[in-house]
Parts: sequence; C-alpha cells; structure tokens
Amino acid sequence: MAGGDVSQRWAAREDLALLTDYYQLTMMAGYWKLGRKDLSACFNYTFRELPPHNGFAIAAGLEQMLDLIENLRFTKQDLEYLSKSGAFEPAFLDYLKDYRPTCSIQAVPEGTAVFPHEPLLQVEGPLIEAQLLETAVLNALNYQTLIATKAARLRLACGDDNLVEFGLRRAHGPDGGLSASRAAYIGGANSTSNVLAGKVFGIPVRGTLAHSWVMSFESELEAFRAYVATCDEPVLLVDTYDTLGSGLPNAVTVFKELRDAGRPVRAAIRLDSGDFARLSKAARKMLAEAGFTDPYIIASNELDEDLIADLKRQGAPINSWGVGTHLVTSSDHPALGGVYKLVAVREGTGPWIPRIKLSSNPAKMTDPGRKRLVRYYDGAGRPLADIIRLHDEAPDVIEPGQPAKPLPFAERQDLTFLRAVWDAAKCEPLLQPVMEEGMRVGHSPSLEDIRARARDQVAALPEELRRLRNPEIYAVGLSPDLAAEKVRLVRQSPGVLAPGPAPAPS
Amino acid sequence: MAGGDVSQRWAAREDLALLTDYYQLTMMAGYWKLGRKDLSACFNYTFRELPPHNGFAIAAGLEQMLDLIENLRFTKQDLEYLSKSGAFEPAFLDYLKDYRPTCSIQAVPEGTAVFPHEPLLQVEGPLIEAQLLETAVLNALNYQTLIATKAARLRLACGDDNLVEFGLRRAHGPDGGLSASRAAYIGGANSTSNVLAGKVFGIPVRGTLAHSWVMSFESELEAFRAYVATCDEPVLLVDTYDTLGSGLPNAVTVFKELRDAGRPVRAAIRLDSGDFARLSKAARKMLAEAGFTDPYIIASNELDEDLIADLKRQGAPINSWGVGTHLVTSSDHPALGGVYKLVAVREGTGPWIPRIKLSSNPAKMTDPGRKRLVRYYDGAGRPLADIIRLHDEAPDVIEPGQPAKPLPFAERQDLTFLRAVWDAAKCEPLLQPVMEEGMRVGHSPSLEDIRARARDQVAALPEELRRLRNPEIYAVGLSPDLAAEKVRLVRQSPGVLAPGPAPAPS
Repeated sequence: MAGGDVSQRWAAREDLALLTDYYQLTMMAGYWKLGRKDLSACFNYTFRELPPHNGFAIAAGLEQMLDLIENLRFTKQDLEYLSKSGAFEPAFLDYLKDYRPTCSIQAVPEGTAVFPHEPLLQVEGPLIEAQLLETAVLNALNYQTLIATKAARLRLACGDDNLVEFGLRRAHGPDGGLSASRAAYIGGANSTSNVLAGKVFGIPVRGTLAHSWVMSFESELEAFRAYVATCDEPVLLVDTYDTLGSGLPNAVTVFKELRDAGRPVRAAIRLDSGDFARLSKAARKMLAEAGFTDPYIIASNELDEDLIADLKRQGAPINSWGVGTHLVTSSDHPALGGVYKLVAVREGTGPWIPRIKLSSNPAKMTDPGRKRLVRYYDGAGRPLADIIRLHDEAPDVIEPGQPAKPLPFAERQDLTFLRAVWDAAKCEPLLQPVMEEGMRVGHSPSLEDIRARARDQVAALPEELRRLRNPEIYAVGLSPDLAAEKVRLVRQSPGVLAPGPAPAPS
Repeated sequence: MAGGDVSQRWAAREDLALLTDYYQLTMMAGYWKLGRKDLSACFNYTFRELPPHNGFAIAAGLEQMLDLIENLRFTKQDLEYLSKSGAFEPAFLDYLKDYRPTCSIQAVPEGTAVFPHEPLLQVEGPLIEAQLLETAVLNALNYQTLIATKAARLRLACGDDNLVEFGLRRAHGPDGGLSASRAAYIGGANSTSNVLAGKVFGIPVRGTLAHSWVMSFESELEAFRAYVATCDEPVLLVDTYDTLGSGLPNAVTVFKELRDAGRPVRAAIRLDSGDFARLSKAARKMLAEAGFTDPYIIASNELDEDLIADLKRQGAPINSWGVGTHLVTSSDHPALGGVYKLVAVREGTGPWIPRIKLSSNPAKMTDPGRKRLVRYYDGAGRPLADIIRLHDEAPDVIEPGQPAKPLPFAERQDLTFLRAVWDAAKCEPLLQPVMEEGMRVGHSPSLEDIRARARDQVAALPEELRRLRNPEIYAVGLSPDLAAEKVRLVRQSPGVLAPGPAPAPS
C-alpha cells in the first residue's frame, strides 16, 4: 500500500505555537519589553556526539520542522491561555497575535550523512523570533535524526534483506510512532506496520497476523486454513503454541494443501519467539522436505542490529526482519543531544558580531559565527573530511563541483584541514537555503528522494565508517579563520579561561 | 501558569483510526470475510517486567486511550486510502465506514501502583473490534506508564525538592513531548517547561533563561541586569562563560543591586554544567557571604535519579532539579514491553471459553480467562500481595473494603496466595469499569486527582519496594482456580509442552 497526503502532516496543524519551552516565551517578552526587536541573531543546530558505535548519523526531520515554522501562529486559545497566566503584558500578547515567522534558514538536506559538531541548520532572523523556534527545531530534528541513524545501522546489519519497522506499540506516543516510521523509512526500512504513516507519508505498510487470530479458533490448523482463505500472500505465525511441534507442521500442511489445490504460493512463516538461528534452520529444513525450497522467513522479537548481524553470521536463513522497540526508541541511546546555540548577533543592518559560549567541558564550547559547512571528496567521490568555515571566508574554495584550491598556509591549519584541501578532488557546500523570510524556498524533496539520498550517502562513505563497532572517526575540522576567531573570542571572554585575571565582580 | 482544555487532547482528534498496525486491518477483513462477526473476545493488557531496579510501576495513559477509542471513526480520507491500496473489498470498507466502538472495558485507575503480569486493562467486545484497539491501547499505556514510573523514581530520589520536567527538546516527537509531560506530572514532577502541556493539561509551566539571552548582550553583567528588569522572580543562569569566575560574581552583583534598590528578592541561580556538588556548595558559600542565606539553586544537565540521590548524599545544596532527557525517554529502559493478549472467546451469547498462548519462555505464556485483580492490605493499609483471579470465582472475598475470608484450602494454593488471604485485613478489586458498549462510564478523574493517587499509592508501599536499587519483589500470585485452569489449558494444548505426544500434522 502506498498513499501520501501532505496536508495531514502533524506539523501543518496550526495549534503548535505553544509546543515550546516556557522560557522561550518569557525571554521573548523580555526582549520585547527591552525594545530589542531590531536585534538579529544567528543560531546553529548541532549535536555533540554520535550514538555509541556509530560512524555517522543521517539527518532527518527537516520537512516537519519547516512545516511547523511556516504555520506557526498563536491561536486565540493560545493567547487566552497565556493571558490567564498573568505572566505576560497585554501589549506583548498583541505582538504575538500578529506574529509571523520571518527568519531565513539554511539546512543540510535530509538524508545526508552528518557528524558531530557540524552546523546542520543555520537560522537567521530577529532574535525574538529565532529564539522561539529552538524547542520545535530540537524536537523535530533530534528524534528523527536519531531514528534515521538507527535504521541506517540496521540496514548495514541486514544487507539486502527486507527490514520492516514494527514499532508503533512501543513508540513514545502517537506522533512518536508517526515520526519514527518516517525516519526509519529514510534510514533504510522497506516498510512499516503503521497504517497512519502509510496514509500520511506514503510509506509501504505490511503485516502478518497476531497470536490472537490463532487463539480465536478451536485449533491452530483451523486458524491457518482460515487465514490463507482470506489473504493473497499469507505469512503464517507459527509460535502461538509450539513452533517445531505444532506451528511448523501445521504450516507445512496448509502450504501443501494450497499447492495441491493449484494455488501458487511461496511458503512464508513468521517466528516471534525462541532461538531464531535454531528455529529458522529447522524451518528451512522442514519446508524444504515438503518441497518448499525458497521460504520467506520473517523474524520479530527484540531484534537489534547486533543480534541481526550475529544471526546472519551463524547462517540463520531469515530473509526479513521485523524490528520494533529497538528501532523506534533507539534503545541503547534514546536521545540525540542536539542543541541550538546562538553564534552571532547583529544590531539593525550593522555587521554580524560572533558570539561564543564557554565551558569547562571543551565539547560544550560553541563554534562562533555564521558558517558554511563544506565536504571534501577524493577522486572516487568518497568523503575525505568536512570543514566548518566562517560564512564570508575564502568563497573561492567552496564552489560546488569545483576542484578545491589549497589556501595559503596558515599557522593554525591542522592536519584535518590540510588533508581535506590538499587531497580533495572536489568539494561541496552542505548547507542549502530552505527558508527565506519565513517562506520555504527551493524544492521540497519527496520522501523517496530523501531515502535514496540516505542510501547513496551511506554507500559512498568509507567502509571504515560503516562498521557496527569501533568505526573510524570521520574528520571534521575548523578552517584556520574559524579556529583563529574561536581563540580570539575565548581570550576576550570573562572568567578563568581568559589569559588575564578574571574581572572582579563590580 | 495553569490552564486546561480537554478538547485539545491529542486523542480526541478524529483522524487516528489508522494509528494501528496493518495486520489489525487485514485480520479484521479476514474475520469479516469469514463471517465471524458474532464472535466476542476478551483481551488483557499486561506487562512482563518492570524497568530495571524498579519495585513498582505507576499506571498512566488511560484517559488518552479512552478518548481515542470513544472517537474512533474511519474518515472519508482513511477509507479512500485503504481503498486505493486494493487490499480490501468495498463491502468491508462499507463496514468500516459505519464502525463505532461497542466494547466494554475495565481498567486499573491511572496513578495506581502496578506490577508485572497483572491484567491492567480488560477489554470485552466483538473480536473484530477489540482486535483493532490493540495498537492504540499499547501506544497510549506503554509510554505513559513508563514515564510516570520514571518520574515516581525521580521523586523518590528528590525527596521534597522541586522537580521540573524539561524534556520536550529530547522527546520523541511533539506528542511524545506532550504525553511525557502529562505522565511525568502524574508520577511526581511539579511542573514542566512544555507550554502546550500547560495549555492542554493544566500542568504548571516553569522556565528560567537560555545561554542565548546572556550571549545576546555585550556582557554577562549587562544580560543579568536586563533580565531581572523584565522578570519578577529571576533565576540567573550562571554557566555561560565561567560559573565561579564570572557567572556567580555577576549574579551576586545583580542580587545586591536589587536588594539595595529595595526590591525583595530570593537569590536564585541555575547551574547547567560542571560538577554540581562543587559548584552548588561554592555558590551557597558565595551567596551567603553576600547575605543571601536561603538561595534557590536549580541544576539541569543529564540528571537522573541515581545522580540526584548521589548529589544529595554528598550534601549538594540544590533545591530544584530540572530533568529532561532521562525522564522523557526513560533512557535506561526506553520502552515498557506491555502486550495485549486474547484470553477468552465467546460465540454469540454462549459461555466464555478461556484461551492461552504457550511459549518456551514461561514469562511469555499468558494467563487464560476473564479476570479480576485483587489487592490485599495489612491492618496498616500497606499492600501485602495482589491475586489474579478468574472473573467468576469466589466473589465473597473480593468485596471492596471487606475483610478477606480465607478460601477453603486447596492443593495448589501457594505461599503468595496464603499470605495474602490469611494475613490481610482488607482487600480491594483494582479493575474498574471505564467503558460500557463504547461509552465512557463513571467519573473521569482530574489530572490532579490522578497525581494525588500516585503519590498516595507510592507512600503506602512497603519501603522495601521504594529502594532505587534491588528492591523487594512484590508478591503477585494466581488464585488456585486460575492456576488450575492454566495447567488444564497447557495440558490440552498442542505441541511438546503437552503431556501426550504432539499431534501429527494431518
């Protein structure tokens, strides 16, 4: 089944303005009260670390995020609620009533392989407005990127096998399920059990049958006979009572009856418990002895990429994997720690002033300034390294598709940077304009195109990054100009990290 | 802030009929085609194990589940989508068009302390209809119960401190965030940062300020001065540049200025990075030296119940905890493995026939039959044990509030059962009618009442169950009649588990 009805995307609903953290609204009220409406800001979305054992992540969630921003309006009910709280002045609520997003956004396309510390989204606009977007941006991008990444990892384990996302019943609420189905499909799932995801996103939907079907009949054999009578391509669930002692013998009986009746059928079973290596091998043998030499065997129960890889290593003849809980919750790492940080401010039409956040933890120190993100490739089209650049530096080396020209040597060029710009055959800017002054620009790719991009991106990665354990760490570096700017701002900042004495409390 | 607008609950939206697994629809189509519309079924919702280290769980999600069921309709768009798939006969789609839920449901009230293997929900109705509800039931109950349980655990660690749920940005999609805020509040959070949860559920919303506020000004001191000018009860975020070298000295300066200006103020800061024990102690000292002896210190950064308990053990003077990721994803166990299993069938108005699902894993074997769930208490009102009974057995011992009368001794009465019925001062049936023939019955409790129930339930538990590590295992047993029925059905079932030879494939 395939459908697709973009008007039904959750984020197109016009009641999500309050899907935000309270402090966004109180800070907006503060900026409004202080008359800071002419101050513009640039924010970057970035995550600090990959889920464990991952060599890469797959960016996802951008379309939902853009839908949400484009439709962001404070409804009458929203304003009544805020008014009743007594925490906001009526004049500020009037401002919210007429609020329309006007920001401009650049983003890495969905389906792109991405890495820690990279600016995956760059939002520019009035500070009072860009601040509000933080929570919605993080909610959309963190979760879908997490799940697309998990799905890509499962795809690596599955090889060319069929991968079905079965997670709705364990997902975190209804939209948790819906977002998960979309992201899992981007990352490499072939289909989902979630019918709403089929309707809304056009994802193929699949399913077999439940134990309750079998248990609702007087006997398992009767249940199987009834099922094949109602279904064109039946997959029989064989573990309701006893897989080897009852389920498989009954399945063989029914598939033989279909064959004897002249109905062409591929013997197809689902294993939902027990040891999948032993049971799948026994099933293949039993089915082969009955003349069914190419069985379809789907397994589903607490599967993850490690177990799938291990079962395949042991030669389990399973050709389809139903993965639920561990896919839709990314169970070994259920949250991507993406953040949305201020990197520059601008008064009126003045120059952009870079800003930095310090931390005793270097990973939590931000990279300042408006940026470009450039990927460098070798002659075979494999990514070599990504360089984060200041927005206005050296535009001659970041033209898409052009050979990279080494910059003049600078003291702070590190090895990553040298490797990228000296060895690269071509380079490509990754941030694309997706919104100008509150309106979407450019082409909104189809879900199939996004999924194909993810597949191609993973395929192009060095195989060292595609290991399931201890992958190589992809090189992401700062340009010399950005590195110098960062050092300059650290030195200027207050506190113990500055080279001079800390400013005394005045 | 408090509000509340029940009409905005996600589950009241009338477009969620397809929030289901595909196999529910194909099985429904099968039952319909086979003319099995007179067959009724009874399903139980139960979970098999607690999240690790938990002595109990807190039931949650029922109200959303009931809203969804009550409003379950297949829209024109839903039917068009299903029709286009080609997988369903037009006459079946006509049946769906007029579909209205007619089932009856008993449930354990939200906020109740519950345990593995207990029937927390009992659905009775036409099989074709009760089957459809599986996915929605699991989606609503699994997630909210998981999060209410995590929140209750955090509440145990926090003691009487303030606990704020900050998880929206890391939650699994927008409704993941909304459901999480509700469940966290039930389990013991005092407030949320999620404004939509404030509007929809009336949960108090709270927040401080972001690093971006501080970074948008020329200096931290200027940012703090501006903030306190816009805000009645300012909480200053002190870690943007350097907590001890800059943030705290600037905060002290500003709080002194407020005091000198005659504005009564409680010194309040937020720590968002660094070592919370060292920093909170240093902050208290620095604030006390400036005359602020009762500071409000909120900490937020990757907190969970273990870290909070350990920080309190070390005497960290933190009186408010902002918990996000680990609360709303239940990060050490991000899915509750609840299942919805057929336990009995009935043809027309005939008798209910119990059904069982077998498994080589005893935990996956179901308890057959329609049931009651009875909690037994000692004279001090502490729960002693829960007994799962057959629906129609021995009603004289399960009258609410009445002393339990020991049943006649039976061979299979085990120690749990004996302990419960012999030592108990009173007993209480836990399953309450919540829906009759598709319509809600009884009183729908307010969120505050549900939250109070959870608090009282946890307080009444033996303290051995309230440990954060290796708690005692609460006694849940089968009644002798149910245990005997289970053994009888296992013996009757096909396969190796039966005492006789497995039936040969016929």
